[in-house]
Amino acid sequence: MRLEDLRVNGKRLRQSLEEMASIGATPGGGVQRLALSDEDRRARDLLVQWLEELELAVTVDAMGNIFGRRPGREDDLAPVLSGSHLDSQPRGGRFDGALGVIGMLEVMRTLRDQKVQTDRPLVIADWTNEEGSRFTPAMVGSGVWSGALDLQRAYDRSDIAGKKLGEELQRIGYRGELPCQKFPAHAYYEYHVEQGPRLERERKIIGAPEGIVCLHWYDVYLKGEANQVGPTPMEGRHDALSAAAEMILRVNALPEKMGGNMVATVGEIHNQPNSRNVIPDAVHFTVDIRSWEDERALRAWEVLEKEFLAVAKQRGCPIEIEETWRVARSSFAPALVQRVLKSADELGYPSLQMVSGAGHDASYLNQVSPTAMIFVPSIGGRSHVEVERTTWEHCEAGANVLLHCVLESAAER
Amino acid sequence: MRLEDLRVNGKRLRQSLEEMASIGATPGGGVQRLALSDEDRRARDLLVQWLEELELAVTVDAMGNIFGRRPGREDDLAPVLSGSHLDSQPRGGRFDGALGVIGMLEVMRTLRDQKVQTDRPLVIADWTNEEGSRFTPAMVGSGVWSGALDLQRAYDRSDIAGKKLGEELQRIGYRGELPCQKFPAHAYYEYHVEQGPRLERERKIIGAPEGIVCLHWYDVYLKGEANQVGPTPMEGRHDALSAAAEMILRVNALPEKMGGNMVATVGEIHNQPNSRNVIPDAVHFTVDIRSWEDERALRAWEVLEKEFLAVAKQRGCPIEIEETWRVARSSFAPALVQRVLKSADELGYPSLQMVSGAGHDASYLNQVSPTAMIFVPSIGGRSHVEVERTTWEHCEAGANVLLHCVLESAAER
Repeated sequence: MRLEDLRVNGKRLRQSLEEMASIGATPGGGVQRLALSDEDRRARDLLVQWLEELELAVTVDAMGNIFGRRPGREDDLAPVLSGSHLDSQPRGGRFDGALGVIGMLEVMRTLRDQKVQTDRPLVIADWTNEEGSRFTPAMVGSGVWSGALDLQRAYDRSDIAGKKLGEELQRIGYRGELPCQKFPAHAYYEYHVEQGPRLERERKIIGAPEGIVCLHWYDVYLKGEANQVGPTPMEGRHDALSAAAEMILRVNALPEKMGGNMVATVGEIHNQPNSRNVIPDAVHFTVDIRSWEDERALRAWEVLEKEFLAVAKQRGCPIEIEETWRVARSSFAPALVQRVLKSADELGYPSLQMVSGAGHDASYLNQVSPTAMIFVPSIGGRSHVEVERTTWEHCEAGANVLLHCVLESAAER
Repeated sequence: MRLEDLRVNGKRLRQSLEEMASIGATPGGGVQRLALSDEDRRARDLLVQWLEELELAVTVDAMGNIFGRRPGREDDLAPVLSGSHLDSQPRGGRFDGALGVIGMLEVMRTLRDQKVQTDRPLVIADWTNEEGSRFTPAMVGSGVWSGALDLQRAYDRSDIAGKKLGEELQRIGYRGELPCQKFPAHAYYEYHVEQGPRLERERKIIGAPEGIVCLHWYDVYLKGEANQVGPTPMEGRHDALSAAAEMILRVNALPEKMGGNMVATVGEIHNQPNSRNVIPDAVHFTVDIRSWEDERALRAWEVLEKEFLAVAKQRGCPIEIEETWRVARSSFAPALVQRVLKSADELGYPSLQMVSGAGHDASYLNQVSPTAMIFVPSIGGRSHVEVERTTWEHCEAGANVLLHCVLESAAER
């Protein structure tokens, strides 16, 4: 068989995706596999079993990142790397993350079936805690691996129950012996669902993002004065929730004010004492700002912060703001982005150059190695929800694009 | 000793208040005795012990309301009744409720010390679940007793963990044999902290509310569409939290719009999935509207509901509204209100006629018996918080007013 005629086994890909989706399956048809939970452990165990069946050399590093290495004909050349993550959001979807890991697994299975040996070695990766919903920040496994984040700081992050990331890694048996540090990679591909509505709206099957928008996270803490609501006149109240409401609307209005392709969101709010007849005296909420233009996002925050301070002052609610996390825009390697588009074209899949609004491990990998991503459509643009879906046909199409991109990169000197 | 020279024992009153405050004491100096919790049981046990030391006839009804009866010279006359509640808000104060129960206890102890026998019998009451923070609605013990609420419906109310009120009553041993139903009372007095800033601002010691403002509670449920925030453009989002924020500001602006002495508050909000990078798809929040004018409060709700529906429609967030609870304004017995003012005057305490912004068991009692309340200042107007305080001097002053009101009512034919 000529290499250009190679195709993945769509049925096997689907079976493995479904088997993985049974781990942490939710009644609503999604999955809940929070990072380093028992469900995450079972997902990892299944992956390791699959990698061993392929006779890959399996290693686990100190951050719990799992690698499976397939030797190349010229085995001392830098490998072609591809992967994603198996952890999920709370009540999240089956495809976000898992598709990229199992897609690369299917590529390797296809190569074994057809007895294809590549020049360069191939490495599949499962990165720890991409989602960041149990332990912030997100993408911490690839972040430490790339050298951008500190291992000990990552270990010390606590979940809402006070459990530390390092201890949970130990508990589930995935605190590996291998130091967590970058190794040379000739190329990194990450195959993922789009998580937005664009491919579906434009009737495309493959998306090739030229990069990932910048991502700025803030945490806002407001104080008020708690009182029984009935006897406390409106004048002189210090109602932290009303102040927060005003700020949430400012966040909501920010993108239109700033222009560009910006999005700004408050996803999380905690209100104290949260009793219907007590004036709220403490509110914590989050702000998420993303844009393809770093500068515009920074200017937007300057505008917003001034508005927050004015609202806090006017309502007599002391405010504290934490700049929790900032990731600059990540521009992928143009040659690899073009390769994704070309492969899609050769395979007969309509494609689109776009940007990624979501952060991905590819963002950190891009600091170490030439990087690109392969997107397939999310039905209704939905993700991070139990109804997140991608058709099996599109799952297979994306894996075929990944296969050919990997083959081309692995043949390069 | 002439009856007009009788005074309560301020030191003993303080000791009993402090002993009661040690049950469920919080690190911040308040108490947490949620209705029918283990702390509530211990508070009830202590009260029953104190009542038995006074040789009162102690009974517990099917709602867990506790009564202690002191015989009168003409024991078949309707008794003079006084009491309040021992349950508290989460992280609540030491005085809200407890002062009225222990104040009447001190009145009875004083009468025993001085060997005073009244014409009419006297009854002290501890009403179950006044606060309504564990089981809604509030004031359920006096509500069932007065005939306004249904016993079985009260039993079926669940707390946030799914535990039913009736079962918790059984568990703590206070589901009494006595049917929960009103008995004739010649007068009802409830002694309570003001929970607002007015007495302090006007430098008065005793407040005599002419009644309790009306109280309307609503629960609002919004739906949105959850999506990963990054790849989902602002256009076409259905963000339930942004919709809620707009509604919260409408609630906050309502009193100024409607005029009168209205207050309107959102104290409680629940956001789903409450993850910083997911657009919120379900929000539940509460609305509390109070006014001395029932009509104005109803008109205000009509205005607000229209605004809510418009916001929900414009943001594409389906809305459901529950009219959870409505209590009409309660006008107390003018003769008893005057007696509170006169007693304060005779005792040399500066006093003020006012209204009560908070609901009290007195509101239901007022449907059964002539009723009045006695208020003492709340420092800084603070209540439902751990720092809720009233000076010991003012606690004693209010108990003296209660003593003389009770004596006068008990001497009436």
